[in-house]
Amino acid sequence: MDRIDEFRKLAPKIIDSSADFRLKSTSLYERYYGREHGRTDLLERFVYGLPERHRESIRSAELVASPGCNATATILALSPLHRRDLIETAVVEVKAGSSEGGNAASDASHHPERSGAVRSYKPTGHRHVAEMIQELPGPAIHFSATSIEMVRGILATCHVFLKEDVSEKDVWKIYREDYSDEPFIRIVKERSGIYRYPEPKLLAGTNYCDIGFERESGSDRLVVISAIDNLMKGAAGQSVQSFNLMLGIDETTGLEFPGLHPI
Amino acid sequence: MDRIDEFRKLAPKIIDSSADFRLKSTSLYERYYGREHGRTDLLERFVYGLPERHRESIRSAELVASPGCNATATILALSPLHRRDLIETAVVEVKAGSSEGGNAASDASHHPERSGAVRSYKPTGHRHVAEMIQELPGPAIHFSATSIEMVRGILATCHVFLKEDVSEKDVWKIYREDYSDEPFIRIVKERSGIYRYPEPKLLAGTNYCDIGFERESGSDRLVVISAIDNLMKGAAGQSVQSFNLMLGIDETTGLEFPGLHPI
Amino acid sequence: MDRIDEFRKLAPKIIDSSADFRLKSTSLYERYYGREHGRTDLLERFVYGLPERHRESIRSAELVASPGCNATATILALSPLHRRDLIETAVVEVKAGSSEGGNAASDASHHPERSGAVRSYKPTGHRHVAEMIQELPGPAIHFSATSIEMVRGILATCHVFLKEDVSEKDVWKIYREDYSDEPFIRIVKERSGIYRYPEPKLLAGTNYCDIGFERESGSDRLVVISAIDNLMKGAAGQSVQSFNLMLGIDETTGLEFPGLHPI
Amino acid sequence: MDRIDEFRKLAPKIIDSSADFRLKSTSLYERYYGREHGRTDLLERFVYGLPERHRESIRSAELVASPGCNATATILALSPLHRRDLIETAVVEVKAGSSEGGNAASDASHHPERSGAVRSYKPTGHRHVAEMIQELPGPAIHFSATSIEMVRGILATCHVFLKEDVSEKDVWKIYREDYSDEPFIRIVKERSGIYRYPEPKLLAGTNYCDIGFERESGSDRLVVISAIDNLMKGAAGQSVQSFNLMLGIDETTGLEFPGLHPI
Repeated sequence: MDRIDEFRKLAPKIIDSSADFRLKSTSLYERYYGREHGRTDLLERFVYGLPERHRESIRSAELVASPGCNATATILALSPLHRRDLIETAVVEVKAGSSEGGNAASDASHHPERSGAVRSYKPTGHRHVAEMIQELPGPAIHFSATSIEMVRGILATCHVFLKEDVSEKDVWKIYREDYSDEPFIRIVKERSGIYRYPEPKLLAGTNYCDIGFERESGSDRLVVISAIDNLMKGAAGQSVQSFNLMLGIDETTGLEFPGLHPI
Repeated sequence: MDRIDEFRKLAPKIIDSSADFRLKSTSLYERYYGREHGRTDLLERFVYGLPERHRESIRSAELVASPGCNATATILALSPLHRRDLIETAVVEVKAGSSEGGNAASDASHHPERSGAVRSYKPTGHRHVAEMIQELPGPAIHFSATSIEMVRGILATCHVFLKEDVSEKDVWKIYREDYSDEPFIRIVKERSGIYRYPEPKLLAGTNYCDIGFERESGSDRLVVISAIDNLMKGAAGQSVQSFNLMLGIDETTGLEFPGLHPI
Repeated sequence: MDRIDEFRKLAPKIIDSSADFRLKSTSLYERYYGREHGRTDLLERFVYGLPERHRESIRSAELVASPGCNATATILALSPLHRRDLIETAVVEVKAGSSEGGNAASDASHHPERSGAVRSYKPTGHRHVAEMIQELPGPAIHFSATSIEMVRGILATCHVFLKEDVSEKDVWKIYREDYSDEPFIRIVKERSGIYRYPEPKLLAGTNYCDIGFERESGSDRLVVISAIDNLMKGAAGQSVQSFNLMLGIDETTGLEFPGLHPI
Repeated sequence: MDRIDEFRKLAPKIIDSSADFRLKSTSLYERYYGREHGRTDLLERFVYGLPERHRESIRSAELVASPGCNATATILALSPLHRRDLIETAVVEVKAGSSEGGNAASDASHHPERSGAVRSYKPTGHRHVAEMIQELPGPAIHFSATSIEMVRGILATCHVFLKEDVSEKDVWKIYREDYSDEPFIRIVKERSGIYRYPEPKLLAGTNYCDIGFERESGSDRLVVISAIDNLMKGAAGQSVQSFNLMLGIDETTGLEFPGLHPI
């Protein structure tokens, strides 16, 4: 934020991977970041860099703000349901790896302490909720994050309480409609085998967001599960995806790595 | 279940660590276990072996059914709120280690596949939900379990939607009232440091259930977090605790191990 | 071995990733595998598929036997010293991941047992020693393998007792001479930072063999350290490398993945 | 070292867990620690706190220096062979957990970097070698340490080149003679099962040193494997053991924890 004028002189197009320009609303920013925003004049000019929702705007944008990792996993999981006004409420539980905490060593990241942790990082009040509110306005979204033994990766388990009854078959149809042409979204839902739902370890190094779901019988709950590599689709990979769109080249350029197994 | 008559001839008091006699309701059993119960005549005679709720009954019981691990973590987390009729709905997300899957090797437990997994084990329909319904009747409890990289341990994150506004201070008071005399329940809620909420790795080998919480501002959500060692308070340890009660000896006998740090 | 005639009818060129045809010597095979070899007629016709030692033979070969993973890491580490007759004796200690045990589940690979293991897998008598004896004849090579918490990867720590005094500068020169043109071998030896020696996790998914070393002052010991991904340079990747040579295409085709960091 | 006079005024008996007073020889200290020793007057007055070698001296000592963790694992593994003058040379390879690096966070201990590491910590020149030279004078001991994915624990794989032929049966006899009465040493050598050799994870929290071995056929190598918890027998536990001896109470007081399984 403080150096944006400097950067704009250097480059005609800018992708900001920080959290500074993701929100359009000054009040939302202040509520979640606890401080005033220094460059409110630019907020409206940044496009939220989630190609699955804003592809055409990104293509022509000069300024793109790349989404937060937890916000990416959550918004991609819920967007098709939100678009159809099916969400009454959602409880989102993210399980995240240690790289989400950044590359600076701290007492909390010291291996003997961080190893094997199942640590309630932000039971409430996580900053990425602001992005969810912006992109998925209307329903209440309750978010918690837990840090687990993993370096890369996010699994978002989204407990969606539906406004109307939707069968699993309908859910299949909804997600296919929205995502079948998306190069980086895959529906993962198998009846047998080990990998029946999205699994972040298989996505390490890739730009994919895998999405699965299961409908609870006898209730209004639909569980939608999404997985990403927080350093790829949740950060640098997604920025490259926007970069490709902004330059008019193939959206998947440089993002072809399919992942490793076993890992 | 099939051998209970044989066992009863051998011992005057029995603690069953299996899932056969935990439920009082035949229909609840059939719904969650998908088969008929072979010994419905004994269901009412078994006491549900959760000392924090049924201590006096356990003391005089001949037959005790030790609770499931996920049920233990969830019921202990929610019981004080349930007793005061404060729960409208709850979404419970358990993160569990590989020992929960038992000691038989399988494709799913093969180390190269299980290692680093963040695996949606039962997004809906987990059998332990039946025990939660029995012990915490009334509010809808929505349960999902995710297997993570860990051998021992459970962290249950319970998103409780409250019937009435309750401050964090009130929550403190409620849990203290119910649990301050409990030998194996500790309230863990720190303002700073690395271990601000319950952390299952610190409980490995112990019989403790650690409970923490955080109230979401501006909503009706209260996040209650509980941690246990699934092989101790969630299995053998809890059976020993019942055993001690049934024999009239100190409830903590053999369960004094305080845990290791770092681990 | 049993189906080789069948396979030869299907393909003009064969790369065998099993251990059946790696050894030229029937007696060496029998000593380390504890059984008779069923197709001794073919032993001499197979080329040992280590391109850094047998590139020209592989190019023109019809039959290639891909080396074992531990043998690859060890032979590549020691080959430049062996070629110059500098090795008096070597003690090789391999640290290996769980994927080395294959993809069949067993009690030993069951996650709660295998997790966190530091398991002396073969203190003596490992079958891959036969390949080391074949490729590095002369000096005694003492080999032990320890399974550690890792899925992919091998670190071989080779304690070489030198026949004559060689300075670290000389060692640099020797390894550069032999390996500077090799597409998949890198010398890793930094004076500072975290990654001063080869580190297998950085090689996951790659075909690299990273090699470093340190000379013990006041003794005749030189420690040579090599790292590979046992499923790539130690298995499938190396087979692809041979395949590329046999087809006369660029040796690195399909093997360009540079690895992930952090991981 | 700098505060020892202060401490001596406070307590009649002192156990020093630091590395300051472990060595008798000033020159050995200077060679391995790279600085002058500030209190050479006290060196001879400290007893090296390894009860299995110096029990009687510890009982009557006022000043005890607790051994280093790697030195403990190595010396206990080799001592019975050394006492009988059977060691020509030994190559010792220690695999160690992250708690060995201390409790201060650093770039190297930052979880995303330290996780999954197989890091050659000290291929040569480790300070604990000085203690091995002092306690096991004569044969050349070549030592390397590798940091692996583990918090607590050490596995020392000792490749001993024997002066004379000794059968496995003889080795059994030698270790039984020296260690059968030791409260914290166990011989672990099984013909089948998963745990055939010492395994550090089973020792977490305990004061045991488990020792196993395997004789290489056709060579003069004997592999001796020892495991300890570096924070217990390798540090605080061993200090408590000395403390018990110095106070004339049962040597095992406070050290009864038998370990956890699975873990």
